[in-house]
Amino acid sequence: MPVETLVWVGDRPGHVRMIEQTMLPTRFEELDVRDVPGMVDAIYRLAVRGAPAIGVAAAYGMLLGVQDLEGLSGLEMMATTREVADTLAKARPTAVNLFWALDRMVKRAQSELDGGADGDAIRDALFDEAHSIFSEDQHTCEALGRHGAKLISEGGTYLTHCNAGALATANTGTALSPFYEAQRQGKKIAVFADETRPLLQGARLTAWELMQSGIDVTLITDNMAGRVMFEGKIDAVFVGSDRIARNGDVCNKIGTYSVAVLAKEHGVPFYAVAPLSTFDRKITSGDDIPIEERPPEEITAGFGRQTAPDGVKVYNPAFDITPAHLVTGIVTEVGLIENPTQESVEAVMREAGIELI
Amino acid sequence: MPVETLVWVGDRPGHVRMIEQTMLPTRFEELDVRDVPGMVDAIYRLAVRGAPAIGVAAAYGMLLGVQDLEGLSGLEMMATTREVADTLAKARPTAVNLFWALDRMVKRAQSELDGGADGDAIRDALFDEAHSIFSEDQHTCEALGRHGAKLISEGGTYLTHCNAGALATANTGTALSPFYEAQRQGKKIAVFADETRPLLQGARLTAWELMQSGIDVTLITDNMAGRVMFEGKIDAVFVGSDRIARNGDVCNKIGTYSVAVLAKEHGVPFYAVAPLSTFDRKITSGDDIPIEERPPEEITAGFGRQTAPDGVKVYNPAFDITPAHLVTGIVTEVGLIENPTQESVEAVMREAGIELI
Repeated sequence: MPVETLVWVGDRPGHVRMIEQTMLPTRFEELDVRDVPGMVDAIYRLAVRGAPAIGVAAAYGMLLGVQDLEGLSGLEMMATTREVADTLAKARPTAVNLFWALDRMVKRAQSELDGGADGDAIRDALFDEAHSIFSEDQHTCEALGRHGAKLISEGGTYLTHCNAGALATANTGTALSPFYEAQRQGKKIAVFADETRPLLQGARLTAWELMQSGIDVTLITDNMAGRVMFEGKIDAVFVGSDRIARNGDVCNKIGTYSVAVLAKEHGVPFYAVAPLSTFDRKITSGDDIPIEERPPEEITAGFGRQTAPDGVKVYNPAFDITPAHLVTGIVTEVGLIENPTQESVEAVMREAGIELI
Repeated sequence: MPVETLVWVGDRPGHVRMIEQTMLPTRFEELDVRDVPGMVDAIYRLAVRGAPAIGVAAAYGMLLGVQDLEGLSGLEMMATTREVADTLAKARPTAVNLFWALDRMVKRAQSELDGGADGDAIRDALFDEAHSIFSEDQHTCEALGRHGAKLISEGGTYLTHCNAGALATANTGTALSPFYEAQRQGKKIAVFADETRPLLQGARLTAWELMQSGIDVTLITDNMAGRVMFEGKIDAVFVGSDRIARNGDVCNKIGTYSVAVLAKEHGVPFYAVAPLSTFDRKITSGDDIPIEERPPEEITAGFGRQTAPDGVKVYNPAFDITPAHLVTGIVTEVGLIENPTQESVEAVMREAGIELI
């Protein structure tokens, strides 16, 4: 089964052990994080990355900041809680899951305080909340894997893009969870991994974690996906998602859209695997999702030396939008949304208790 | 106008001046090649590359081997001619154009010998033949540019993949020649260049040579081509070709097929630009074209450091096949073959005097 991206070690006081992802894929190192500055540094340096994993890291980071405090008043503990959350929030100012997790921790503390808890009780409640965030992520990954694995056949070969795997979560990942679950069920499968330029998450992370788990993985450059499908090698595509609009349009790492168009051309099913927390109730179409543009150096000097002319103009969008009509299905923790439409996506969101405006 | 990839400098004795392409794109250096071992080295090291340019380099390499010989008998000169050709042939054993040019030079010498020429006359005939190979390449590029430029509009934006440019020929290139001709006609155009993994010919060569000529070029990773088309930015695609089957299937650098599928999805015309010498009369379909697989290191450690796990399985096909039904047209030196079919391609080949079996 997959690698352990980050775990809480011990009871109280305890610490966080995480895979030092900046050393991958050439070196496997584990990092023990024992205080808040250490966690800020780990998140900032991308030693831990991937939205769900960052959420868990933030929650556990809060524990590092409060675990040694004994005998404080409720108000004193609340002040420290907010202070630690503010510090952690600065680690990566654009990581939505970071704020979500910190916010949830602060709210839990506040609710305990409102209920009359003292400092020790609030601290214990924070432990409870952080472990809940961790185990909810585990259960979500497991459910995604369970529903996704139904789409995986014995002897099948699948394509994935970027890394939406164990290394991005506290468990089996999103896009890769069906592969791990299929393997657990004894199905023999093979995976092609797009290297995923410019940052090579496929080459560095996906290939590495699948190899660790003994899944047969073959690395290709992004522009080979079409050829591989042309040769009839791919049975289905599984990708993650950063954001899904209410009409089923899928925002994901740049290059996902090209893979979806190629899949359609070859009659290959294309699945996005994403928890309901990825669905954005404020957005009715992919057109409303702003696409982050990143620095040219990622393309012109990405591998340790300059590979493009000085001063060349570069376009470097980090994400793209795959329109719902190219998406065969969205695998969520509550099941598969087949041929997603605004109607079917909103129905699932409503059923899950997400208030639609 | 474009860069001068290689030229013969002086009369006799003269030498070859070429762009040292291994230094691009970070340094522009010219290399003077004055003897046969120097030319073997230049071809072997890829200081000069691209099928037409290699052909010209080989022909000029022959001149370097015979230019100082005076007063030889016809038979003596013929023996030296064959010896020099054999030496040059070993520089790159898979470069078809290398053999084609050497063969043509040897045949010319033989025909002069058969006509009773002495050594000096054969030597002078070889000069004539090499300059013909050079100027035929120039004229072919010009004709490709002229026919291709009719497909280019003022203010248009075009996508290209790999490098089929001035740097691959002795003049304006194949795929890029329409851009240079459009610019010469005063049309203002913009070009998106795929970086073209794994060897980055787009980033290293296409971006560089278009910048040198003042054409507005934007570099993207291969997996961004879909997004750029989705945004409505591309008016047409122009690519080169390594081999075209009699049914119009186009073999070209890996990734070309994906671009063609994306172009079809977006209603963007897709053109291959190639001289008639690229058409292979022995091959009736792209299925018959063997696809070279290259070493995994090109993908796992291509640019100065290892970016994939030790021992990862890699699939690295160097080319792919774009079926004729995805090709809007093939631009040749005798004009455009629209919606190529076996019938229309063979008609053009016959008209050009290519004997079909």
